[in-house]
Amino acid sequence: MISYLLGVEFIAFDRCEGGKGKSFVPLIPGETKSQLREPVANQVVTPRSSLALSYGRGKYATKNLSLSPRLRSTLRFCIRACSTDDSFQPQYPSFTYNDSSASRGWGVMGTLLGLGAVLAYHECRCRADQESPRMYTREEVSSHCSPKTGIWVTFGHEVFDVTEFVDLHPGGPAKLMLAAGGPLEPFWALYAVHNQPHVREILAQYKIGELNPNDKAPPTLETSDPYAGDPPRHPALKVNSQRPFNAEPPTELLTENYITPNPLFFTRNHLPVPNLDPDTYRLHVVGPPGGQPLSLSLDDLRQFPKHEVTVTVQCAGNRRSEMTKVKEVKGLEWRAGAISTARWAGARLCDVLAQAGHHLSETEAHVCFEGLDSDLTGTAYGASIPLARALDPEAEVLLAYEMNGQPLPRDHGFPVRVVVPGVVGARHVKWLGKVSVEPEESYSHWQRRDYKGFSPSVDWDTVDFDLAPSIQELPIQSAITEPRDGETIESGEVTVKGYAWSGGGRAVVRVDVSLDGGLTWQVAELDGEEQRPRKAWAWRLWRLQAPVPAGQKELNIICKAVDDSYNVQPDTVAPIWNLRGVLNNAWHRVHVYVTP
Amino acid sequence: MISYLLGVEFIAFDRCEGGKGKSFVPLIPGETKSQLREPVANQVVTPRSSLALSYGRGKYATKNLSLSPRLRSTLRFCIRACSTDDSFQPQYPSFTYNDSSASRGWGVMGTLLGLGAVLAYHECRCRADQESPRMYTREEVSSHCSPKTGIWVTFGHEVFDVTEFVDLHPGGPAKLMLAAGGPLEPFWALYAVHNQPHVREILAQYKIGELNPNDKAPPTLETSDPYAGDPPRHPALKVNSQRPFNAEPPTELLTENYITPNPLFFTRNHLPVPNLDPDTYRLHVVGPPGGQPLSLSLDDLRQFPKHEVTVTVQCAGNRRSEMTKVKEVKGLEWRAGAISTARWAGARLCDVLAQAGHHLSETEAHVCFEGLDSDLTGTAYGASIPLARALDPEAEVLLAYEMNGQPLPRDHGFPVRVVVPGVVGARHVKWLGKVSVEPEESYSHWQRRDYKGFSPSVDWDTVDFDLAPSIQELPIQSAITEPRDGETIESGEVTVKGYAWSGGGRAVVRVDVSLDGGLTWQVAELDGEEQRPRKAWAWRLWRLQAPVPAGQKELNIICKAVDDSYNVQPDTVAPIWNLRGVLNNAWHRVHVYVTP
Repeated sequence: MISYLLGVEFIAFDRCEGGKGKSFVPLIPGETKSQLREPVANQVVTPRSSLALSYGRGKYATKNLSLSPRLRSTLRFCIRACSTDDSFQPQYPSFTYNDSSASRGWGVMGTLLGLGAVLAYHECRCRADQESPRMYTREEVSSHCSPKTGIWVTFGHEVFDVTEFVDLHPGGPAKLMLAAGGPLEPFWALYAVHNQPHVREILAQYKIGELNPNDKAPPTLETSDPYAGDPPRHPALKVNSQRPFNAEPPTELLTENYITPNPLFFTRNHLPVPNLDPDTYRLHVVGPPGGQPLSLSLDDLRQFPKHEVTVTVQCAGNRRSEMTKVKEVKGLEWRAGAISTARWAGARLCDVLAQAGHHLSETEAHVCFEGLDSDLTGTAYGASIPLARALDPEAEVLLAYEMNGQPLPRDHGFPVRVVVPGVVGARHVKWLGKVSVEPEESYSHWQRRDYKGFSPSVDWDTVDFDLAPSIQELPIQSAITEPRDGETIESGEVTVKGYAWSGGGRAVVRVDVSLDGGLTWQVAELDGEEQRPRKAWAWRLWRLQAPVPAGQKELNIICKAVDDSYNVQPDTVAPIWNLRGVLNNAWHRVHVYVTP
Repeated sequence: MISYLLGVEFIAFDRCEGGKGKSFVPLIPGETKSQLREPVANQVVTPRSSLALSYGRGKYATKNLSLSPRLRSTLRFCIRACSTDDSFQPQYPSFTYNDSSASRGWGVMGTLLGLGAVLAYHECRCRADQESPRMYTREEVSSHCSPKTGIWVTFGHEVFDVTEFVDLHPGGPAKLMLAAGGPLEPFWALYAVHNQPHVREILAQYKIGELNPNDKAPPTLETSDPYAGDPPRHPALKVNSQRPFNAEPPTELLTENYITPNPLFFTRNHLPVPNLDPDTYRLHVVGPPGGQPLSLSLDDLRQFPKHEVTVTVQCAGNRRSEMTKVKEVKGLEWRAGAISTARWAGARLCDVLAQAGHHLSETEAHVCFEGLDSDLTGTAYGASIPLARALDPEAEVLLAYEMNGQPLPRDHGFPVRVVVPGVVGARHVKWLGKVSVEPEESYSHWQRRDYKGFSPSVDWDTVDFDLAPSIQELPIQSAITEPRDGETIESGEVTVKGYAWSGGGRAVVRVDVSLDGGLTWQVAELDGEEQRPRKAWAWRLWRLQAPVPAGQKELNIICKAVDDSYNVQPDTVAPIWNLRGVLNNAWHRVHVYVTP
């Protein structure tokens, strides 16, 4: 049983009149909309200050009401404040997630985390037959996952047809659709605002039956499968590859929270997840010539000063799917979600290396990492970083054993992984088994024959991997997470949200947003934690609320970010296309339709 | 009298048959073309290895012969090897340049530096009348500076009409045209291959008369002018502003040498050049609270360990003229030449600050610099950099008193300037008078109200300088120096040359060149010194030799560079346009015509 931490907060709205919902107002006493949207310099994100992030959702939800005119005519919102207590604790309330068995047991904690307004639907029909419930199989439920088939969900053993509620969902239809055809629990665990009696009341009104008690849970993976021991994962993750497991959170969930909840953190595995016993785990640190090697248990590692740092990790292949549209590449079809942010804690690599007797050498050297994950031939995942970075205390390279206040989840390197702030995810070696200092970079395939950038002119016949440097620091990046590509928005005002991050500790200084395909630009507001000079390891979230230009039927929305070296993103994908589809940091583009 | 160092080498060509000159071959024994074009990793540039840079020039010269068919028909080249001695010394031979008086006295040293082949023109007419020379004024000479008027030059007191020689010039017509209407000496001083008897013989054949001995040199600046004390400058510099003096080398000269000759180094002055006495010069270093201030003479500074480093300096306004084409900006019309490279030597700022008792503070702090140049109100030029950079020995920030082995020229900060590797030129404060450590950035106009980047949407009515960070590290940059925009090239093969550089010590890992406006790309060869990891303070020169696509009448040539954080240049200028016209690092584009 592993507990996870979440950095999500609730928002509640005051009562509004009329279906348009234009008067949705946050319920926190004494705060106005403009206050919420102006984070103060150096302000650490608190439950209250991050309310700004949630503000657009209410708006979004009400806009979507127009899609369901029949329901809207009978609709009245009854808003209840979930809490107005500024001092509620903890900041990252935990919820539990049964990580150790194939059946998923979700324990929903009572802490308010949530999504947005909570509503009650007074004039609905009650379709549940409490006397003789109709029985359904899980398969039947899962086949009801679109407006065409009807949208069913389960909670416990009960089955609900929420087709007509989808458009009323205060967090927006898209968020509820993530659970279509399956259980609500994994999502309510993330957005615990749902865990209130009146939400259950609303749900009850949509009950259509129960799960057949004879219906078994889906079979687990076969034990002969090397991936049979992989842990269970959150159903919201968009899976790009099951074996090895590679998945990203839906982008619309990605920027809900400054800190990505552990179950939603993107997962990039190269091999099966090893099942390591924390009691017998040892980290082998090779000493310098003539020196003593170290063999460190988890407890030994905890004896080093504990260092905590918030770090965004990004896969080199993030946004590869846009590159594929230019020309085929080899690689997983990552959308814009191969990036996530966590609060990591562990021993500093520089402290561990110092204890083993390593110090900076005159000539260039490298710290090589080897994982305890391996293929059938016994080849382990490996990577390296320059020794200068590893030994620099200011670079804050960690041997991390905690992620958001909890032990690392198995998918993220339990019990120990490397965290290299500002550097591509491929060097954050998980399930760390061995550390050594070498005159050359790691000879691992993933260091030498992968994770490198090439000119668009280079193909698989002409590529020479020795000619390109291995990716370490990543370039400036940003992407739009709301609205989604192809979505229809209402005229009036649009809220554009996203993330921006740069490698090497370079801070994001500005995000420009265009609604007209790049002809004109507006400056977005930056949210999230303030970034430290030279140590801006974590992303900024951003938002722009702007009028939809009158008469526009479509919008071509673009974002582009600038870092404190004034590096910018390139305009288009084709000129940075490369055969491995890495390093796509072109302007991110989203095309939406506007209702007349 | 100040001597300068040059990093230029000669190249000589073997005899060729026929006017097309296709068989031009370097004369260095035992080396082949392919050897010349493949610099070895970690190889320091020697006179021989940099031959590759010069190789295209012979080709270029011969190509242009086709422009002058009448002459070509009577032409035979008589090639003489200038030297084939691999061991010639010094690598940077010096020449003298009288910097201390308003009259320009050029002493041409005999060392071979050179441009390219030397040729003799056997069947020319001799137009000089040795018996009764015709007399001309300097004004008359200067009016002959185009093919239309005829192209005249002077050498000593003699006047030459070189109109018909221009297309025969082995270094290419463009280089000779830099001297049109004026004296040859400043250019021959840079390219001392000219200082040989047979070059004088060739020149003599074009003599048309002499300078009138009663004709006075141009009047010097009036003494009431605050700029009257400014030093003389090299006539090849393209002047963007005379008061204060701001000028750049012609781009076709910029990449002739990895190390920019001092007289050609771009000059960015904000105020009149102070005339400082090195004997009474003192640098005031403010101590920490309770500490002792330092007052350092030039000799005191020389007592600190002497540190040498090759650093490229770039103005934030480099390539502003391309931004102006998008929309008007405030600023000097820099082309692509506001960037140059020198070998700097001096005391490390970290050593001087340590002696004054400064050390790294817990909170962010800044080192403020004040120049001894000032306006009429006494306001001095000023700027600052973060203390963390100043105190980091690896950042190699210098208080420099030497530039390419010579005392700093007056235009470049004599006797002492700051050199901040990887950082915008505006922080390399010249004529340094005072150094202090402050909790805030310099309050100088140039730190707080200038040299900052903004969104294209920001105009002079809406700009808030407090919202943008001062420019420190610069983004990845590259530009094409050959061929020139609008030039006509021959079909067959084209040589594209240029420079590439990134801020913050980030190395240039690749330059892509397109001949078709960005549809397809080829990878250029990188020349110049190998770059150190994390300390790539100096540029890479690059070149691409490629076939001109058959049937093309025009080429849209583009270059774009990639640094080791895989940052790239943006495609276009408009989306990075800003009201001050700084930070233009869009793809550099050159449009040329192809002769059928």
